Amino acid sequence: MKRTTYAGLIDEKYLGQTVTLSGWVQKRRDFGDLIFVDLRDREGIVQLTFSATNQIALSVAEEMRSEYVISITGLVVNRNDDQVNNKIQSGKIEINVTDAKILATSKTPPFYIENGVNANEELKLKYRYLDLRRPEMQQNLRIRSKIMSSAMHFMDQNDFINIETPILAKSTPEGARDYLVPSRIFPGSFYALPQSPQLFKQLLMGAGFDRYFQIARAFRDEDLRGDRQPEFTQMDVETSFMSADEIRTLVNAWVKTMMYDVVSFDLDTAKIPTLTWQESMDRFGTDKPDLRIAYELKDLSSIVKTSDFGVFTNAIKAGGVVKAIAVPGGADKYSRKDIDKLAQYIERFGAKGLAWLKVTDEGLKGPIAKFFPEGNDLIHATGAKVGDLLLFGAGRTDIVAATLDYLRRQTAKDLELVNQENPWAFAWIVDWPLFEYSEDFDRWIAAHHPFTMPNEEDLHYLNEGEDPHQAHAQSYDLVLNGYELGSGSIRINSMSIQEKMLKALGFTPEAAHEAFGFLLEGMDFGFPPMGGIALGLDRLAMLLAGQENIREVIAFPKNSRATEPMTQAPTRVDGKQLNDLGLFLPEN
Amino acid sequence: MKRTTYAGLIDEKYLGQTVTLSGWVQKRRDFGDLIFVDLRDREGIVQLTFSATNQIALSVAEEMRSEYVISITGLVVNRNDDQVNNKIQSGKIEINVTDAKILATSKTPPFYIENGVNANEELKLKYRYLDLRRPEMQQNLRIRSKIMSSAMHFMDQNDFINIETPILAKSTPEGARDYLVPSRIFPGSFYALPQSPQLFKQLLMGAGFDRYFQIARAFRDEDLRGDRQPEFTQMDVETSFMSADEIRTLVNAWVKTMMYDVVSFDLDTAKIPTLTWQESMDRFGTDKPDLRIAYELKDLSSIVKTSDFGVFTNAIKAGGVVKAIAVPGGADKYSRKDIDKLAQYIERFGAKGLAWLKVTDEGLKGPIAKFFPEGNDLIHATGAKVGDLLLFGAGRTDIVAATLDYLRRQTAKDLELVNQENPWAFAWIVDWPLFEYSEDFDRWIAAHHPFTMPNEEDLHYLNEGEDPHQAHAQSYDLVLNGYELGSGSIRINSMSIQEKMLKALGFTPEAAHEAFGFLLEGMDFGFPPMGGIALGLDRLAMLLAGQENIREVIAFPKNSRATEPMTQAPTRVDGKQLNDLGLFLPEN
Repeated sequence: MKRTTYAGLIDEKYLGQTVTLSGWVQKRRDFGDLIFVDLRDREGIVQLTFSATNQIALSVAEEMRSEYVISITGLVVNRNDDQVNNKIQSGKIEINVTDAKILATSKTPPFYIENGVNANEELKLKYRYLDLRRPEMQQNLRIRSKIMSSAMHFMDQNDFINIETPILAKSTPEGARDYLVPSRIFPGSFYALPQSPQLFKQLLMGAGFDRYFQIARAFRDEDLRGDRQPEFTQMDVETSFMSADEIRTLVNAWVKTMMYDVVSFDLDTAKIPTLTWQESMDRFGTDKPDLRIAYELKDLSSIVKTSDFGVFTNAIKAGGVVKAIAVPGGADKYSRKDIDKLAQYIERFGAKGLAWLKVTDEGLKGPIAKFFPEGNDLIHATGAKVGDLLLFGAGRTDIVAATLDYLRRQTAKDLELVNQENPWAFAWIVDWPLFEYSEDFDRWIAAHHPFTMPNEEDLHYLNEGEDPHQAHAQSYDLVLNGYELGSGSIRINSMSIQEKMLKALGFTPEAAHEAFGFLLEGMDFGFPPMGGIALGLDRLAMLLAGQENIREVIAFPKNSRATEPMTQAPTRVDGKQLNDLGLFLPEN
Repeated sequence: MKRTTYAGLIDEKYLGQTVTLSGWVQKRRDFGDLIFVDLRDREGIVQLTFSATNQIALSVAEEMRSEYVISITGLVVNRNDDQVNNKIQSGKIEINVTDAKILATSKTPPFYIENGVNANEELKLKYRYLDLRRPEMQQNLRIRSKIMSSAMHFMDQNDFINIETPILAKSTPEGARDYLVPSRIFPGSFYALPQSPQLFKQLLMGAGFDRYFQIARAFRDEDLRGDRQPEFTQMDVETSFMSADEIRTLVNAWVKTMMYDVVSFDLDTAKIPTLTWQESMDRFGTDKPDLRIAYELKDLSSIVKTSDFGVFTNAIKAGGVVKAIAVPGGADKYSRKDIDKLAQYIERFGAKGLAWLKVTDEGLKGPIAKFFPEGNDLIHATGAKVGDLLLFGAGRTDIVAATLDYLRRQTAKDLELVNQENPWAFAWIVDWPLFEYSEDFDRWIAAHHPFTMPNEEDLHYLNEGEDPHQAHAQSYDLVLNGYELGSGSIRINSMSIQEKMLKALGFTPEAAHEAFGFLLEGMDFGFPPMGGIALGLDRLAMLLAGQENIREVIAFPKNSRATEPMTQAPTRVDGKQLNDLGLFLPEN
């Protein structure tokens, strides 16, 4: 019995044909002399009928249970009218089975193999091979696969060379925590799993490959959140002799092709806005704005600074700002209790309370309305209309930004104000600061990475006696629907600039050469101007599949404890393996 | 100055056009008012002329040195007749430069950037970015890239789904030594880097994906040889509901496409021979025969067992064999001293001496000729002709096989008897033993891996009281020119067979479930019949690029001490990193 097609592909075109199919028993209904079986394979479901006309096949069907693996041969016929199911491709036909075989039996699965199944996440991960049988999971991984083939094809057409870089690499400072791999030949030495192929791709440009592409695995030993995994996949690109503009144009063409190939969407890349980092922070409070939401942050500092509301005036006097969003139609939708909840949530950003006003026919209403008798200024500056809810942030610029970014996204979600007519809102964010202050490390770190080329007119900031933190960079992020899809830049290709950059990050010359000597030395042998980008495959696949967690687009993801519940990795290992590596554990 | 094309692509078609190019200075010849510069990019070389007509460009050219990175604009003109170089695409033209810019300077490289450079291997690896600039290295990596795009495209066309499997996986017994990754969240536990995605791809078939493909990184912490690296790349395939024959047919189609795409070779897959493992061992002494060599091993045991030559008769009495190869035209080519050298080499296989005879007009000549007065039997059985050299192996079957396999390949190399008219000699080797005896481990191990399905008629050998080592497997290797390109099989999809298999390998039921419980349990939930193959990308790229070491087709390979000389990985790491992992080193 050799399969002739997939179950899910059969429709009226097959009427009158004899087909052989293989797959899983989705459902079985037994009426004695008549048994219906829904047969499932990766393409969908078809209904099989076993009847007394063929006793042998009928007796095989009597044995069948959910998730048994079977092969059948039968004739494609019309269903009875009362059996027609217009929801599936094969809903008008069924298969009169003449021959059937059970290839593998199954115990009853711990959860139903169907979309939207309500099972515990750990249980689904433990039986991942069953979870992946569910049509929506099949679809998710096929979208991911389509993104990869589309990317490979585009890069191939554009003369990119696919080059693999090492997974067993060198541990370097800067960036996140490395995963380490002990060396057996040199006990006490370690490889590190790469956090990105960044340095290797720069070296490949130094080697003259001109256009590099790789679908690369990268690793970070960080605490995990919903959209983070210990290992993740980058679609990694690097080019020589191209400007930042040219690279963005290339990426636009790539993204356009991909959106068409994967979700049949005709993206107009001419309409993708390019915002400076400063503009994005000013208007949206974030460097990854969701442009499907129409309302923006408005700076009210100059208006409110003369008011009698101490919270606002003090914030401004302390060097901070007062900004607000006008949530369309929000006045009726949010009770005082709802607003209290929002106020409580934003404490995590450092906000101390949430000022608000409702715009009514009779002007501004709310606890702080009395401070703004001339409310028209506020209404005008925020562009608010009757029925809108004004939410304020007052204080340090970064806290106000984080607060109003959150409130903008949350209220848009609550009130369904995310514009569905523009489902794929891409944006470029450019002209980033070269450095940013890290609260975690309590020092300045590279906003992108230490190999990012400063703007040409800002190079002098790296000189002795100047403030390097004034410099902006030739860097660019691609944002989609409020998610950072990818991050890129022109790279430093001169040893002296790279040395200055590392010095600004606190490296002594010795430490710089210890960590990055091979790169610095390489730059002394003719490294071309170069730049590139890496797009996160996991996040892109998640968005295109309409999912909210990257686990849904990864075949065998880790849970939030970095454990893989099916194999239970990581595990204890043989003492001999540790001996070979010269490692000791505390309890040994 | 925006590049209009690649230097190496310019030929007479560009005559009269103004072009802008970017690349590296290969060579500079300075005649004062006239300077020639060979400009190199990834596509090749073009000659630039700087003359007094354009003083500014000329003065820039005066500064240029080897490996400087430059951009130029100029007019494509004919070369003077005495300057024509027919060896390169751009050999008839040159470029009269009107504008020039130095983008990066270079120190003098430690070796010349040219093909066949005679530099120390460690030096080349240390300056890998310079080594990779050499045209032959560029070509090698482009061949590798082409293989990958061809494979991706073929798999896409054939409805395979590209699915990534974890790099941070579980350590399992069997197979080679794992690379381990300490867990920070669970100190004392380890991930292992996968030796192949084998179990994951079986689980994906259990999950119903039906056709899986991945270009997958795999890892083995083994002692290194010329064609081994700590990390390597597999083109990994798995399918459901297909027989071994159908899978081989699919792989043939894939290989045919690839050979055409990559080396423009029209492979006739109908002519790829399929040999059983036993036949391959009998005829070639190896399971990866080089079929470009015409002469084979001939079993002479029945002929020589009645001779007076004790070495032969004793070998046979002890249960061994006597076999020989007839090296065409070898009689004159090998001196006694040459033969002594071969004899010395084969000691490593356990051979104790090398018996030989020369076939002359006057019959057999050589030290053992006296034992074979009726030499015609030997000449007939070996198919030898006048002028041939007979080389004998006598003793244990496996030692004779290894010895004569080596002698066959070595003599063919020495005498250029490798048939160049059949440059790509593929073969399928099928019907392997299920187990093989490992001298290293001093026990029986799986010949392929523990998940290989036995032949149906051999399943009973796994039952209590029978000898499992009699069983043969539904496995198949693809061989090219004496190299194993890939290895595949039908997999076990039944818990009970898998348990018997693990028992035959010495696992207790508890140990089997500890190591492979997730797989065994999965098989109880309806796993389909499945099979697949993995082709080694490194080795295939090496062969198609005409190289003899896989390092030549890997961008940043490790050396024989598993060190990467450029970055010097593996390295010492911060004490803090080890503390985070709960690891102690002996010297701490």
